[in-house]
Amino acid sequence: MHYTPQPQAVQSILFDVLGAEAQLAGLAPFAEADGDLMRQVLEEAGKFVGEAVAPLNTLGDNPGCQFAAGKVTTPPGFRPAYQAFWQAGWPALSASVDDGGQGLPGVLECVLYEWLSAANHGWTMAPGLLHGAYECIRHHASDELKERYAAKIATGEWLATMCLTEPHAGSDLGLARTRGTPQPDGSYRVSGTKIFISGGEHDLTDNIIHLVLGRLPDAPAGPKGLSLFLVPKFMPDGRTNAAFCDRIEEKMGLHGSPTCVMRFDEATGWLIGEPGRGLNAMFVMMNAARLHVALQGIGLLDAAWQKADAYAHERRQMRAPGARKSPEAADLIIDHPAVQRILDTQRAWVDTSRVLAYRTGLELDIAKHHADADRRTAANRWCSLVTPVIKSICTHQAFHGASECLQVFGGHGYVKEWGIEQIVRDSRVAMIYEGTNEIQAIDLLVRKVLPDGGATLNALLNDLLADSAWSQPSSSLQANAEALRQVTAELVAVNAADPSKAYWVAGEYLRVTGLVLLQWAADRLAASKACAGSPQAYDAWILPELGMRMAIIRSQLSIK
Amino acid sequence: MHYTPQPQAVQSILFDVLGAEAQLAGLAPFAEADGDLMRQVLEEAGKFVGEAVAPLNTLGDNPGCQFAAGKVTTPPGFRPAYQAFWQAGWPALSASVDDGGQGLPGVLECVLYEWLSAANHGWTMAPGLLHGAYECIRHHASDELKERYAAKIATGEWLATMCLTEPHAGSDLGLARTRGTPQPDGSYRVSGTKIFISGGEHDLTDNIIHLVLGRLPDAPAGPKGLSLFLVPKFMPDGRTNAAFCDRIEEKMGLHGSPTCVMRFDEATGWLIGEPGRGLNAMFVMMNAARLHVALQGIGLLDAAWQKADAYAHERRQMRAPGARKSPEAADLIIDHPAVQRILDTQRAWVDTSRVLAYRTGLELDIAKHHADADRRTAANRWCSLVTPVIKSICTHQAFHGASECLQVFGGHGYVKEWGIEQIVRDSRVAMIYEGTNEIQAIDLLVRKVLPDGGATLNALLNDLLADSAWSQPSSSLQANAEALRQVTAELVAVNAADPSKAYWVAGEYLRVTGLVLLQWAADRLAASKACAGSPQAYDAWILPELGMRMAIIRSQLSIK
Repeated sequence: MHYTPQPQAVQSILFDVLGAEAQLAGLAPFAEADGDLMRQVLEEAGKFVGEAVAPLNTLGDNPGCQFAAGKVTTPPGFRPAYQAFWQAGWPALSASVDDGGQGLPGVLECVLYEWLSAANHGWTMAPGLLHGAYECIRHHASDELKERYAAKIATGEWLATMCLTEPHAGSDLGLARTRGTPQPDGSYRVSGTKIFISGGEHDLTDNIIHLVLGRLPDAPAGPKGLSLFLVPKFMPDGRTNAAFCDRIEEKMGLHGSPTCVMRFDEATGWLIGEPGRGLNAMFVMMNAARLHVALQGIGLLDAAWQKADAYAHERRQMRAPGARKSPEAADLIIDHPAVQRILDTQRAWVDTSRVLAYRTGLELDIAKHHADADRRTAANRWCSLVTPVIKSICTHQAFHGASECLQVFGGHGYVKEWGIEQIVRDSRVAMIYEGTNEIQAIDLLVRKVLPDGGATLNALLNDLLADSAWSQPSSSLQANAEALRQVTAELVAVNAADPSKAYWVAGEYLRVTGLVLLQWAADRLAASKACAGSPQAYDAWILPELGMRMAIIRSQLSIK
Repeated sequence: MHYTPQPQAVQSILFDVLGAEAQLAGLAPFAEADGDLMRQVLEEAGKFVGEAVAPLNTLGDNPGCQFAAGKVTTPPGFRPAYQAFWQAGWPALSASVDDGGQGLPGVLECVLYEWLSAANHGWTMAPGLLHGAYECIRHHASDELKERYAAKIATGEWLATMCLTEPHAGSDLGLARTRGTPQPDGSYRVSGTKIFISGGEHDLTDNIIHLVLGRLPDAPAGPKGLSLFLVPKFMPDGRTNAAFCDRIEEKMGLHGSPTCVMRFDEATGWLIGEPGRGLNAMFVMMNAARLHVALQGIGLLDAAWQKADAYAHERRQMRAPGARKSPEAADLIIDHPAVQRILDTQRAWVDTSRVLAYRTGLELDIAKHHADADRRTAANRWCSLVTPVIKSICTHQAFHGASECLQVFGGHGYVKEWGIEQIVRDSRVAMIYEGTNEIQAIDLLVRKVLPDGGATLNALLNDLLADSAWSQPSSSLQANAEALRQVTAELVAVNAADPSKAYWVAGEYLRVTGLVLLQWAADRLAASKACAGSPQAYDAWILPELGMRMAIIRSQLSIK
């Protein structure tokens, strides 16, 4: 059973719950992107994903990508599907019209990537970095580089990588040792070894553009010494550059995506942006990239739910409690509370997370294009605070919720045949990459909430509760938002005396923030009647975690 | 890095915390098993596990077991290790001296199997069913069958299987269709297909003895129509029986254990026990088998912890909060609170779970051998209530805690090289087999706690709090035990009006019960100073879940 996108469910959240049409209508570049056009784009996207990409997911897992003599062969069907994908214009959905893009709102691209990830996480890793690379080049590269690469990457004709991690430098990029040595012609000789490079080498496209973080000869130690280099696999004159794939990793899952060890051996590259401002050049893509990882989580969980829901409606075991439900010797397992509860809970996770993630997509569009500076500020606030939260909670739930969905299958879930265990394996990496979930928590609490005494967080909560499209927040949501303000104030106070304390409870704080945001989303869904799943499931099975997290934070704060 | 058993840590829990020597001294068969002997056995067991079994774990994953033309080839080294294992007498540790066993307490076997599972879960599946099969034959088989098979299985010279599941009959064994047709010579022709048969076919031993659940021709439908048949791979005269392995499953993990589809095609078998009492004959082994699965969970989590702890003490990334800890450019990741917290928490899970599991092993010994009927009743009560709890919580924690340990490695955890992802994959199945964790929850609440109005549960809590080796239970433990009694009473009351309610909260109820039991264990560890990990970790990071679970139960009970 392949994943099947459900455009109606998504449209209902985008347009009915979030009022996307009205939100986007005020943004100049999207004046022509009315609801009908956006609906049509989503219908077409759903078709493409379901027909061209989803059926390849099992092949992505096995045989997966193969490595031999420096070359990576992607699984059968991957290249034709990718070629069809870029030629149909999908990677360029929200790229600028100037660069061959369609200039549509980024939020549509969010939905597209959620579905692609649900359908085939491994395949989707290939174009997953495209938009970020495009934005990075567009905003920071020289005109000459833009001329040569922007359109190729905007359209997806060539794929791109981000070469950040080194064997000893993972979460701590400041330790990176890759060097770039200036040449008389303005280019650089780039040397160093990068690991965990998704799509560092493959056969999907005719060229691969590497964005490589490294140091100039005179650079200081630490993150401020990092510059960004563009290193193509093939040079403009057709020669092969000295960018070598030494091996691909044997991983827990995601075998459809080659995770490469890349060795740059005096490869030719060009500087993107200012020397020493490499991290800055990459940060333009960070919120979008993290949002995309959150959307991967949502998609993977939806895919797991689809499988488990279908299985629960065909498998019979034992009598369910209550009145006899079937003349057969056993009832459908969906009629067993333990199974129904799993499915209701994961459905509620998908639906509420979608509200948060799509709103974040809208806020990114608004932050870029709204005419009003205050509105842009509010949008940036939302993106800054909510992005680490959803990156963490959605990827956490993808893995843990997919494991719950596996449980619905009993022993059959543990064998490969049903495809559910692949989702568990594939999804696990999303809790790690684009900043581990522990780093997201530190980003939220230590870097964003505490430094201004909680002011930004409080402003976000004000926005959330005062939302004009919203009749009146429920008393429970108001109380929980107030509890979040209160515990924030306590953290601010304790932090002044002991700055290490926050690091112990950052994970809890992120979960509390996430649960309040999700409660807002659940209330929104309930008010709009757009929720396909059990409307009580969020309150019943998910929200109670909030009290536990609060108790843990408080007990830590009380320890001297 | 292979798993290394730590006999001292285990001995400290067994002897210092649980007073095993005094507990066992009163049991007639163990009069000669003094503390010194038991310590020596554990030292030797630790050596064998660490030297002979642990180094094969990676080969168990890859290449794993191979299937061709009806035959299963186990990974390199598996057969020699198994032959050394049984020839050294390890499977017979707690088998009766009459059957060639050593007659030692079952609790020692518990420790042995915990270590074996930690070292090599796949390999350990092979002997994992031996003791259950031995007990089943010993208590239920005819003298002739016992004569032929009891000693071979007690010593482990031949391995055994339990053939229960069929494609349409998993949790619901009553749906099984395999038939046994009586023959004039007193044997039966057994026909049917069984799936998920661990070790249904392999090359570890010279014969395999299948215990097969099936129906006599005149048997009623449902579980009461099931009988148990002994079907050997090779007949006493050396002929090959009609028991065929049609394939082995492709699984998420546990590749070192062949999960077979077994087809019995008029195979020759003999009845074990009475016709229609097949489930009864298997139930003698159920508590022990579930306890062994709990111990697998504990072992796997300990193995994950060992790996993560070692990595956290050698990997450096970023500055940890607080005073500078190292002159190097980055601190050890153990100094980062998010990492330390993961390790402290998983260590606390292992230590507290061991206390519960080893006590359950002791209570099983006491239930079998104590002279006093009241003490046997109390021991049976403990085993009956605590076994489903620890089967569920320990296997849940193995998977989720191993995933936390994987997180300590960052991206390196997702690649196979470090072996941590294998533990996540291998451990997942333990939440499913021997009764899914959802079924354990129903077993506890619906079958064991509610029917007598909570009386057995209350008696267990009385035993727990009144424990004579215990100075005075903490006020927090007393309060939580009281809360468990209270919520039990509420469930009993609601259940009278609406028996389906319990099924919605059975999972929560099991967790609450587990958390109270673990709190008792944590208090015991703290009192005996035997806890190697952070003594506050249980209270700080694990126990707060109790309030959340209570809140969920109460909110469900209040729904009309």
